[in-house]
Amino acid sequence: MTRIWRFSGCGASSRLTELSDRRMETVRRLSINQYTVRNWTIPQLLEGCAAEQIPYVSLWRDKVAETGLDETVKLLGDTGIKVSSLCRGGFFPAATLDQQSRNLEENQRAVDEARVVGAEVLVLVCGGIANHNLDRSREMVVEGVDRLLPYAEQAGVKLGIEPLHPMFAADRSVIVSLREANAISELFKSRNLGVVIDVYHVWWDPTVYSEIARASGSIFGFHVNDWIVPLPDLLNGRGMMGDGVIEIRRLREAVTAAGYDGPVEVEIFNEKLWQLPGGELLRLIKERFLRDV
Amino acid sequence: MTRIWRFSGCGASSRLTELSDRRMETVRRLSINQYTVRNWTIPQLLEGCAAEQIPYVSLWRDKVAETGLDETVKLLGDTGIKVSSLCRGGFFPAATLDQQSRNLEENQRAVDEARVVGAEVLVLVCGGIANHNLDRSREMVVEGVDRLLPYAEQAGVKLGIEPLHPMFAADRSVIVSLREANAISELFKSRNLGVVIDVYHVWWDPTVYSEIARASGSIFGFHVNDWIVPLPDLLNGRGMMGDGVIEIRRLREAVTAAGYDGPVEVEIFNEKLWQLPGGELLRLIKERFLRDV
Repeated sequence: MTRIWRFSGCGASSRLTELSDRRMETVRRLSINQYTVRNWTIPQLLEGCAAEQIPYVSLWRDKVAETGLDETVKLLGDTGIKVSSLCRGGFFPAATLDQQSRNLEENQRAVDEARVVGAEVLVLVCGGIANHNLDRSREMVVEGVDRLLPYAEQAGVKLGIEPLHPMFAADRSVIVSLREANAISELFKSRNLGVVIDVYHVWWDPTVYSEIARASGSIFGFHVNDWIVPLPDLLNGRGMMGDGVIEIRRLREAVTAAGYDGPVEVEIFNEKLWQLPGGELLRLIKERFLRDV
Repeated sequence: MTRIWRFSGCGASSRLTELSDRRMETVRRLSINQYTVRNWTIPQLLEGCAAEQIPYVSLWRDKVAETGLDETVKLLGDTGIKVSSLCRGGFFPAATLDQQSRNLEENQRAVDEARVVGAEVLVLVCGGIANHNLDRSREMVVEGVDRLLPYAEQAGVKLGIEPLHPMFAADRSVIVSLREANAISELFKSRNLGVVIDVYHVWWDPTVYSEIARASGSIFGFHVNDWIVPLPDLLNGRGMMGDGVIEIRRLREAVTAAGYDGPVEVEIFNEKLWQLPGGELLRLIKERFLRDV
């Protein structure tokens, strides 16, 4: 917690000092997913978050490659900002055995990067349908986790299976519910395997609260945003917290009740918000994070 | 079956007579949902289907109102085409008690129309979230069914709960899985209450095959189309059978194994297909129906 206290200690604004303990605690868990501020490079993101006393970021591998792994690590050290997660591994279903092998190697590189940047979890987006066979694709996810997990355990990196919304079943993740993610997680009984819960993907599910409770002890991440009506776009139409229908606070409380006290990531892909200046967007996020999460 | 045989008997094309028994049986179950050929009025739809020896249509209430109920009944009698379903009742969650009462009256009118046109089922699209409360909205669906069911029983009309895809949970149906639809259906134990299964809404669900088996005896409708990648639009981006990832044949076989032998509706809302001449679209549907359903 040393680094986080450094933020609160050296630059707390009068607004922040007026906040209740609960609210201070909340801000201390805030993480900005890099693609929420898509146009920023890693140096810009870390500088922007430092200015706003935001203690965590979630990084994407393409952005890490752009800045360079060593430079990223150096900047993280300079700013004291921590990495809540690295996006992403996964995409296990493959049309051929050769493709499956290449996927494994790519996932091992992702584990290495997660270790180097000190990410609390490597997010697994499991991948869509291969060879027009949904059941077989789901089996390939289990096989993929089975092959990757020993490597992650060796590296001391946690893998978090993130179920995506069913509307992504075809092309992004055949794992579409927390129930399935929990089932895979339980299959392996490893301290390095758990789930990542994003409200956008799971809010609609009648079993979500029982599945959150079931995930107790293996929740490795919690992501917030909102579902706006009408949805502007499947992929890039996510809303700012408070602008939609998701009962975010209730879900956050359920996740807390299940024992999760790690960073809370704001992950919003939204064409309109990407047009805002990054600093302005961060201030809006903090405001909504305090009010609605 | 008299009316259907009339089609096969008096105008079977050489193509049709060459078909195997199974295929003949398949075409005899084909129904065209009116919004698949959106630009057509009811007279056009019935004439078009008669020309293509398609024995069933699914009608929408706004189109029935446009043509008039009496005229619709007369045209149905003239052509011998039967009504697989009427779209739609439902939309139970309401912000106020007053709105809830008005919904009930509207649903009763829908039951009356379903009776008059001889629809095999009145499709219930259950409605989205009222008052930002998902759980309460789901309760209001059960309450709504509870109030409407005696009226439907009296009228001899079957009500079919159609779970919609979770991406419609906010604004169209808080009932997003066959599991929930079955649970409501089982709650009432009425021969007039069952489920309607549309492949577009349920294909992604890991429990879909067990839930289809569970629904045995209370499947009141089966709808086909496809999920294309990338999806052009949530609402009006459905695909023609064979153009997407849904394992339609497997789902159809599961529904058949569960004892359903009623009409199979083609329900495709697609901007591009709406631009085709209606007759051409019907011929394409028949071709794909035989090949992929």
